[in-house]
Order: sequence, then structure tokens, then C-alpha cells
Amino acid sequence: MDIRPIGVFDSGMGGLTAMRQMTLLLPGEDIVYFGDTGRVPYGGRSAETIVRYARQDVAFLKSFDLKAIVIACGTVSATALDVLRKENDIPILGVVEPAAEAAVKTTKNFRIGVVGTKATIRTGAYEAAIKKRLPGAHFIARACPLLVPLVEEGRVSRGDCVTERVVEEYFAPVKAEGVDTVVLGCTHYPLLRDVIADYMGKDVTLIDTGEQAAYALAALLGRRNLLNDPERVGKRHYFASDSAADFAATAALFLGADIAACAERVDIEKIRIDTAAFATVKN
Amino acid sequence: MDIRPIGVFDSGMGGLTAMRQMTLLLPGEDIVYFGDTGRVPYGGRSAETIVRYARQDVAFLKSFDLKAIVIACGTVSATALDVLRKENDIPILGVVEPAAEAAVKTTKNFRIGVVGTKATIRTGAYEAAIKKRLPGAHFIARACPLLVPLVEEGRVSRGDCVTERVVEEYFAPVKAEGVDTVVLGCTHYPLLRDVIADYMGKDVTLIDTGEQAAYALAALLGRRNLLNDPERVGKRHYFASDSAADFAATAALFLGADIAACAERVDIEKIRIDTAAFATVKN
Repeated sequence: MDIRPIGVFDSGMGGLTAMRQMTLLLPGEDIVYFGDTGRVPYGGRSAETIVRYARQDVAFLKSFDLKAIVIACGTVSATALDVLRKENDIPILGVVEPAAEAAVKTTKNFRIGVVGTKATIRTGAYEAAIKKRLPGAHFIARACPLLVPLVEEGRVSRGDCVTERVVEEYFAPVKAEGVDTVVLGCTHYPLLRDVIADYMGKDVTLIDTGEQAAYALAALLGRRNLLNDPERVGKRHYFASDSAADFAATAALFLGADIAACAERVDIEKIRIDTAAFATVKN
Repeated sequence: MDIRPIGVFDSGMGGLTAMRQMTLLLPGEDIVYFGDTGRVPYGGRSAETIVRYARQDVAFLKSFDLKAIVIACGTVSATALDVLRKENDIPILGVVEPAAEAAVKTTKNFRIGVVGTKATIRTGAYEAAIKKRLPGAHFIARACPLLVPLVEEGRVSRGDCVTERVVEEYFAPVKAEGVDTVVLGCTHYPLLRDVIADYMGKDVTLIDTGEQAAYALAALLGRRNLLNDPERVGKRHYFASDSAADFAATAALFLGADIAACAERVDIEKIRIDTAAFATVKN
């Protein structure tokens, strides 16, 4: 048994889709969440900037004594996972591998689509992870840069004409390839599940990356004997780099719970990266 | 005559609409531009975060020996101008006052609309500036949070169905008020001028805030005898907080010129604010 908390981070609110699944699967675990709401979105930024931000995010989380970190962000998972693993000595899970695993188990016609931010699609990480498992898979990838702004605007419901139009535009070429499985390669996208599912039709399975990462985390903790007592009620603490009140207000929509009492602001830009050892130095 | 450069900054690329106008009006001036592309967009963030970022932006520009600063960003102008003026001893121009001045000179039916980011509209700065000049004006304000993402995506042309649909949604209530003048209260919006003008019709005048700020700057420099030799060819230098190459590539669209040779990256988060004079960061 390991009573240390788990660290989870995302560029903003999207990672809460993974967080929600973790709290269901692992009710006894303490979890510290960081959302970089002061610098969201990451998906249009350069790889260098994404790596720099991700290092600060991890350094902040490591100021807690953690047993594992989940990168609940498609962009960071695709761009910076290898770097972060090399630089840190605790288990770090991204969303790419678990989602690729789920996709190859799901597909029957070996035609798989992946949607994500520009940065994510640019890396080719999902394609590599899927082809490693299923070399003959037919693969189509599509960057969907307007979906994160739409989700952050709360425009996620059926009947929102703009959202429906944007989804149609991005998903039309994916649908045209006859895929039976689509990886929602950004943790924001499950909020758009209804609109996307309506467009893609009932024969296409949508893979929720946050959900799959939560399953992978549970498996990892079990395998390494790192689980906390499942009978206890885990504590959750939330940090955001912009206003904590704004974070809590939007988080309520994602989590269906009021978290204002356990949300704080953190000045992420002040988190120092020690480029020798990558240790956190507080100011 | 004053040979010192002018500093200009924006959350990202939008301020280049002002920059372009300045280079036309003031060809002899040296100008240093900073675009905070590593943290764009500002318009959805809290006032505290906008002020914090703006202080760093100004502190960076002041590492040059400037004669004036132009805040080529509606969000920062509306949120942080007073604070920045109090804390700095050089002339600082925002986009709100020049645009309000132009709007009251333009309107014939005293019905004025203002569109901007959420943060800008929340401040009421344009309304206050217009009503100070024209207390009886009928005023309608509208936040347009998806317009900056659309512009940053380059989706600015007539015939882009998503852009046209979003513009229609945001501008319908403005049009319904029978305005004859609309302030484009964000320096990104002039890129959408064609789509907006098509929707609003030819009887409505659109005020370009960046353009008006450039006129106000020229007037200020003239009044205070701060102009450089108008016969010389001014030097321009560009800084961005994300990749300089990405900045230069997009800037070419705004400026119609290749600026790659004079664009650099700056690590804006490392810029220190003198905390003796005022409190920077709460917590």
C-alpha cells in the first residue's frame, strides 16, 4: 500500500475528463490536479514551448511527494512524454499509449482515425503507437484546432450550430475513410462526444483518452503494489495558474461537484527548473 | 527630434494591424514589437493575470530606451492601462480612447456598438470612454470569444462558413440595435473586416482600433516634439514569446513582408518586475 498522492496535469480544464474517471476507478486515492489555465491552450504552440511548460508543470507537481504522474493532456503526452520520463524518476503515464491500446483492441476493420490539436497531430505519436501494435492498420489523422476553444467556451451541446458545423468540417475526411474507431486524442474532446457521435454514427467507437489513461493508471498502481486503501475517501486538491474561482466555476461543469474549497492559484511561471537535475526550486 | 524607438505589444499577432498602420504613418520611426505568442490569447483570462502579463510585457519593452509605448491590444488596454501608466514614466497609449474618439466623431444616429474579448467587454472601458464624450449615446457591447481563435487560425476570408456563422451569431444583436458605428475593440478583428462588413452592411462604419491608435501616436509624438526624421527608413525589430520562426511566418500574412531576419524569441516569463514599487503577485 502506498498512501502518497497521484499528480495529474493538463493545459487547462480538459484533463478533468481523466480526473473524473480516476475518482470513479480509484476512489481511495489522493489526487493533486494542476490546470495551466493561465497559458491554455498548448495545442497551437511550438514543441519547444510545450516542453518548457510541461517541465514546469511536472516540477510544480513534484513539490508534493507523489507516487505517479498522469499527463492528462494529449498535446503534452504526444510532445513531451519521453523527455519528462527521462528527467524524472517516478512513473509518468501519458494518454497516447493507453488510447492506442484501446483503439487496436476495438477496431474490427483495422481503419482507425485520430483527432487532436495541431501540436499532437504534428508529432505523429498516435500513429506510431497504433502502428507499433497493428502495423497493417489504415490510419487517418486530423488536427482540430477550434475544438479546444469551443469546449473552453462551454459550446459542447447538440444543437449548437457553430460546434456542429466545425465538427462536421473536421470529421468529414475521417468519416470518408470508413474508420470504425476514432481516438479523441485530446482530453477536451470527450465533452463533445454527443456532437461527434451524432456525426460519425453509431457504428463508430470513440476512444476517450482520459478514460483509458485512468484504466492504465489503475493497472499500473495495482501491478506495482502502489494502491492506497480503496475503502477510504481520497482527498483531491486542485491548482490552476489563472484565477482559482474561475477554475472552480468551470470545473463544476466537468466534475458535477463544487470544488471551490479545494482550489488554489499557483504562479506556475515562478516554478524554477534546475536544468542540471530538474529539481524544483521554490522562490 | 527624438531618435529613440517606440515599443508596441500585444497578446499575439493582432497588434500587427496597428503596427502596419504605424509603419505607414510614421515611416521614419524605429519600432520594437513584442507579441506574447507563448501565452496568447489574453481575452479569456482573469484581470489579475492580464495585469501580471502586461507588466512583464512592458518591463521587457522598457529594456530598450523607448520614447513611448503603444498597447496594441484591446484586452490589455481595457484592463490594465491605468495601472501601467501609474507604474511607468513614459507615455503609454492604449487603443480604447482613440477608438472611442473616432466612434463619437463617426456616428450620426448616436447608436454605437462595441465588440471585443470577454475580458474587454467585462471592463466596460469602451462604454465609459464613449459616454464620457457622448453621454446620450445608445451603446451595445458584445463579447466575441471565438473570433481570436479564428483569426489565429487564419480563417478570415469571405466564404469560410464557420467564420461567417460565428460573425453572424455575435453581430446579430448589434445589428438589431440599429447602430451606424461599430468599434472593433480587439486588434485581431480588422483581419475579419470583410466578413463583418458584409454582414453589417455598407451603412455601418467599422472602427479599426489599431489604426486609430496609430493616428493617436502620430499626434502625440508631433505634439511633444518626439518625432524622428521622417525621411529616414525606420528599423523594426520583432520579439515573440513562442517560436520566432512561427511568428515570422504568420506575421508575413499581417504585414505583407518577410520579417524573419528581424524576429527573435524572448523568454517573457523570466522578465522580472520590480516589486519594490508595487505588488506584483498575490498569494
